[in-house]
Amino acid sequence: MKRPFGAVFLASSLDGFIARTDGAIDWLASVERAGEDSGAAAFYGSVDTIVMGRKTYDIASSFDPWPYAKMRCVVVTSDTTRASRHGETFYRGDLAALFDRLAREGSERVYIDGGTIVAQALAAGLVDEITVSVIPMLLGEGVALSPNIGKDVHLVLVGHEAYESGLVQLRYRVR
Amino acid sequence: MKRPFGAVFLASSLDGFIARTDGAIDWLASVERAGEDSGAAAFYGSVDTIVMGRKTYDIASSFDPWPYAKMRCVVVTSDTTRASRHGETFYRGDLAALFDRLAREGSERVYIDGGTIVAQALAAGLVDEITVSVIPMLLGEGVALSPNIGKDVHLVLVGHEAYESGLVQLRYRVR
Repeated sequence: MKRPFGAVFLASSLDGFIARTDGAIDWLASVERAGEDSGAAAFYGSVDTIVMGRKTYDIASSFDPWPYAKMRCVVVTSDTTRASRHGETFYRGDLAALFDRLAREGSERVYIDGGTIVAQALAAGLVDEITVSVIPMLLGEGVALSPNIGKDVHLVLVGHEAYESGLVQLRYRVR
Repeated sequence: MKRPFGAVFLASSLDGFIARTDGAIDWLASVERAGEDSGAAAFYGSVDTIVMGRKTYDIASSFDPWPYAKMRCVVVTSDTTRASRHGETFYRGDLAALFDRLAREGSERVYIDGGTIVAQALAAGLVDEITVSVIPMLLGEGVALSPNIGKDVHLVLVGHEAYESGLVQLRYRVR
């Protein structure tokens, strides 16, 4: 069975950080513009499933309304006994095995979110497309975009767009 | 006296590395195309001076011909007794003081090159413009673009261009 298409959609500083060292993403406010979501809604609408890490889940849990209502949500965590609040399920184990299961259960396009999970998915070859919104800032330090992937990942540029805020969105296919 | 305009022009992987951990830049070959220099010659022609770090100098020393013949070259190094081979001079000390001296001696536009020196110049507020050629690759680890700058650096996007190779060149003014 064909495994689902894996898509990453994230924002990064020009120097390759997706969050400050403590996880803060306050600096993303510099590119916020009323009525401009840099393609986020369109991307959300293009996936049927999200696989996210536990840290991302802890942050997302405070969002009201829950932003992932229209997709299946799987949280990768060592604590699978947590209570589901929005229909999300919890998974502990190998990411490739999860993708195989998602394929059997009908997932076709999976949004992979959260630094640790994205890096694991890159290392495991589960990412087909990566969209990076480059924020016009240097942070100097923080949570890296692709830590410990253990190999070069070659990309093919398939799209690029600059926004009024100075955000440049780059879309790549993983070769 | 007005200090010279400081310009950075470098290539980075999508995840923010300017070299592998051992300094290797072999991966830049993936975007090399005959007759296409991604604006490098134009940039070189726009500066009158280059200030580079010792590691960059050691690499550049092996280039034949010497690529910086048309500009004044200052190498920042703890060993200022080295023999000059192409008219380059050696400097040990504070980068801001060097820029002040360069201003007195007629430099107007300075190319700042080498990871350590770029980071020092960013931290010292000596960088006015930064051009990053984003290479379509993830390396996972390596020499960071802006280590230890110790502060957020806010940028204003002033140009962007995509090349056939998948390289995307982003040009920013430092705010």
